Amino acid sequence: MRLAELSERSGVSTATIKYYLREGLLQPGRRVSATQAEYGEGHLRRLRLVRALIQIGGVPVAAAREVIAAAEDESLDHHLRLGAATRALPCAEGPAEDDPAVETARRSVEALLERLGWSSGPGLDMLDPAHRRLVDSVAALTRLGYPCGTEQLLPYGQLAAQLAVTDLDMVEEQPTPTGQIEAAVALTVLYEPVLLSLRRMAHAQESARRF
Amino acid sequence: MRLAELSERSGVSTATIKYYLREGLLQPGRRVSATQAEYGEGHLRRLRLVRALIQIGGVPVAAAREVIAAAEDESLDHHLRLGAATRALPCAEGPAEDDPAVETARRSVEALLERLGWSSGPGLDMLDPAHRRLVDSVAALTRLGYPCGTEQLLPYGQLAAQLAVTDLDMVEEQPTPTGQIEAAVALTVLYEPVLLSLRRMAHAQESARRF
Repeated sequence: MRLAELSERSGVSTATIKYYLREGLLQPGRRVSATQAEYGEGHLRRLRLVRALIQIGGVPVAAAREVIAAAEDESLDHHLRLGAATRALPCAEGPAEDDPAVETARRSVEALLERLGWSSGPGLDMLDPAHRRLVDSVAALTRLGYPCGTEQLLPYGQLAAQLAVTDLDMVEEQPTPTGQIEAAVALTVLYEPVLLSLRRMAHAQESARRF
Repeated sequence: MRLAELSERSGVSTATIKYYLREGLLQPGRRVSATQAEYGEGHLRRLRLVRALIQIGGVPVAAAREVIAAAEDESLDHHLRLGAATRALPCAEGPAEDDPAVETARRSVEALLERLGWSSGPGLDMLDPAHRRLVDSVAALTRLGYPCGTEQLLPYGQLAAQLAVTDLDMVEEQPTPTGQIEAAVALTVLYEPVLLSLRRMAHAQESARRF
């Protein structure tokens, strides 16, 4: 298809598509003349992914490019590509403070991972952004004096483990390795607002029931 | 305590505290002389909450002021204050598009709420920001062709309902009504990054197990 059709089918303006092409977020089309290129279903799918990352996920353009680059790096094996792509997704960063609350938080998180049986493997070193963000959030709860010990964190961890099984099942339904990487990125980002919205709606329901 | 001690105990600079006072995010201290005021434990707790909302939760100052104002509005009953405070928390907003994916998403969400038994009460009208955000995210998944029907959404909704019970138990542990409102706001915002971090870590674990 030509640029105009790609724009119409994706709902993304031609100006934005050209911007994504310049920024390397979308692979170039097949040149058919000096001024025209031909695009395929792969371009359409990639374009929708980029748009969802940026518009729904709030992922900055530079980070989106890193995610896409990691997903395409065929020198890595499947698990590594999957990890590189999702690790490139940005996390909101908390303050990196050197206070007693951070020490307490680190110990609570360690005890939690032990209880969950996540005692080794990826995502457990302090350099992993998700791990750092977890420690920072628990430290903020600690400073405010709210309960956030292993007992309170455990149900969250157990539910996250259940969701991971459902999520990876969805990823594995994709027939191609590249499709699986794209699905991992899209499902990681797009199910985050689903989960947070449902939690807030559940709070409203539960609060109405109690008060 | 004086301003200097409030600053030291909260870890917030005196300049920032003065800014929060001017912006109405922190109630004024008790004047003890023309240039000095006295602050109490209530100020310290409020200051930590404001800082956590803004720094960890990424809540803009104007929204934080609305949350605090709703939490303090004694003309509302307890459930309404709780709802007003947490509803004032911002949600990332997706594109409000009038396309077939939004219609499909709306129907999936309706079917989901029916299955969850959340068929009435707050948080269910289209004006609720959490509800709108849920529909937008499901529409984005639909457009990308990823599975997001009732079957896929149901485990998310069931887990959100379980978390709401744990969360409200923590809220109810607070002895005063104002403490409960503050806890609802803090726990809503601060457990969001906890949940998302744990989900990403669980993905890494589950992916390592499978691939």
